[in-house]
Amino acid sequence: MRTAKTVDRLRQAVRAARQEGKTIGLVPTMGFLHAGHMSLVDRARRETDLVVVSIFVNPAQFGPSEDFEAYPRDEERDLAMLEEAGVDLVFMPSAEEMYPEGFATYVLQEGSLTETLCGRSRPGHFRGVTTIVAKLFNLVGPDRAYFGQKDAQQVAVIRRMVKDLNFDVRIVACPIVREDDGLALSSRNTYLDSRQRQDATVLSRALFEARAAIEAGQRRAAAIRELVRNRIAAVADARIDYVEVVDADDLTPLEKLQGRIMIAVAVRIGKPRLIDNIQMTVDR
Amino acid sequence: MRTAKTVDRLRQAVRAARQEGKTIGLVPTMGFLHAGHMSLVDRARRETDLVVVSIFVNPAQFGPSEDFEAYPRDEERDLAMLEEAGVDLVFMPSAEEMYPEGFATYVLQEGSLTETLCGRSRPGHFRGVTTIVAKLFNLVGPDRAYFGQKDAQQVAVIRRMVKDLNFDVRIVACPIVREDDGLALSSRNTYLDSRQRQDATVLSRALFEARAAIEAGQRRAAAIRELVRNRIAAVADARIDYVEVVDADDLTPLEKLQGRIMIAVAVRIGKPRLIDNIQMTVDR
Repeated sequence: MRTAKTVDRLRQAVRAARQEGKTIGLVPTMGFLHAGHMSLVDRARRETDLVVVSIFVNPAQFGPSEDFEAYPRDEERDLAMLEEAGVDLVFMPSAEEMYPEGFATYVLQEGSLTETLCGRSRPGHFRGVTTIVAKLFNLVGPDRAYFGQKDAQQVAVIRRMVKDLNFDVRIVACPIVREDDGLALSSRNTYLDSRQRQDATVLSRALFEARAAIEAGQRRAAAIRELVRNRIAAVADARIDYVEVVDADDLTPLEKLQGRIMIAVAVRIGKPRLIDNIQMTVDR
Repeated sequence: MRTAKTVDRLRQAVRAARQEGKTIGLVPTMGFLHAGHMSLVDRARRETDLVVVSIFVNPAQFGPSEDFEAYPRDEERDLAMLEEAGVDLVFMPSAEEMYPEGFATYVLQEGSLTETLCGRSRPGHFRGVTTIVAKLFNLVGPDRAYFGQKDAQQVAVIRRMVKDLNFDVRIVACPIVREDDGLALSSRNTYLDSRQRQDATVLSRALFEARAAIEAGQRRAAAIRELVRNRIAAVADARIDYVEVVDADDLTPLEKLQGRIMIAVAVRIGKPRLIDNIQMTVDR
C-alpha cells in the first residue's frame, strides 16, 4: 500500500495506474475508520482495479462552532486497517495542500437539496462537501466513487453535482452499517459516554418502529413524523434537530407515503449530533 | 470534422480518442468566430492530437440586462471555418443540454479576481464562466485549453479555478489579434456602425500611447490611468466603464509600475461594451 501526502504524488500514482488501463475506485473519508468505511472499501475492491482512499478532515465542511478541532483522528490505526483490507493507495494531504494561500474557488449547490435537513442547521456544510469532492474527483479521476448511505443527503447532493457539472464518475451508495443494537456506525459515536451510547439507540429504534408502522399500512407522513418524534422525545438527553419524511431522491417533504421514501433524523445526544435514516419503497 | 450536439455523443468521441493515446486540445467559444478564435485553433492543432472546439452562447454568463438574445450567431459560417482549419470535433449543445431542468450546481470564485474590473459591472458573469468551463473540462478532459488574452480577467479567473479545484489541464493564453487599425477582434464588433467602428479604435490607441509613455519612463499608475482616460474621453460617444492599471497575474491595482503589469479598459461605444488590454514587463 502506498501513501501520498501531496497532490503531485497522488497524480503520479494515479496516472501510472490509468496508463496500465486500470479502473479506479475512490473512497473519500475523514478517517477514524469503522466498519461502515470498510464496507465501502470492500465494495470498491470488488468493482475496481485500483482502490484509492482519501483521509482528510475537511475544514471547509465544518461550521465555526462545530467540532473540526475535536473530530477524532487516528492515522496509525486507519493505515493498518486499510493495509489489511488491501487498499492500493491512501491520499492524506494537509489542509495547506488542499486549500493553499489564495484559495478562492468553491462548488456551490443551490436549491432544495442543500437547504433542507442538515443544510438548515449546518449552513455552508454542503459547499465544503461539494468543493472537496470535486477536488478529489479531479485529482483521482475515479471510474467509481463510494459513499455511505448514512449521509443520505450528501449522496443526493453529490449525485446532483456529478450530473450538473458532468463529472464522468459513477456514484455508488452503500447501505448503512449498524451495531448489533441498531446504532448506525459513525466516527462521532466515540464522543458518547456509556449512558449516551445507550440513549443513542433511540434513533434507529424509532426509525425501525416507523418502518413497521408503514409496513402495517400507515401512509400519512405526519403520523410517521409524530411517532418518531415521540419515541425520541422520551429520552431525556435527546434534543431533536429534525425528523423528516421525504422523497428519497429529491428530498422534498411528503404528505402521503408512496414510492421511494426516506425517514431522516438528526438528534443531539449530549454534545454530539447524530444522524440516521431508513429508506424504503412504499406501495399505494 | 465531426459535430456533437449532446453530452453523450461528445463523451463517446473523446473517449475513443483518448483510448488511442491522443492528446486533446479544447477551444471553448461562443461562436461567431473571427481570426482571434482561429489563432487559438491553430495553436491547439500544433500542440495537440485532437482539437475540440465548443460553440455555446452560455446564458449563465450574461446578466439579465445584457445581450444574450442579441449576441451574434452564424453556425453555418462557423462550421465552415472550423472545417477549413482542420478541427476534429465541434461540440454545439443546446442550452437545455447544458442546463437541464433542476440544474443547481455552480462553480463560484470569491475574492479580488472576480470582483475587480469586469466583475464590478457584470455581477454573476464569472460564475457563469467558471461553471461552463468546469463542465467543458469534465466533458472533454483536455490536456490543454486555449483562451484569448483579450479576456485577460477570464484567463486569470480560470487559472485560479484550475489550481483551486485541481483540474489536470494546462491553460494556454494566446495574444490578442487586432485589425490593421488596432481594434481588438471581438464578436461584439459586429454591433458597431461605421462611425462607432471608427471611434472604437480609441481603446487600442489609448493603450498604445500608454505603453509608449511607460517605455519613455513613466512609472506612476495614476498618470497612465489619466492619460488613457483623457484619450478615451475625447471621443464624444465613448462612455468609460473602467480604466485600470493592475498586476498582470493577481489583477490588484498598482500605484507604481513594476514587474508584469496590465492596463485594462472597458468602454461603451454606443450600445456595445468593448474591452481591451495590453500587458508588459516594466523594469524599475
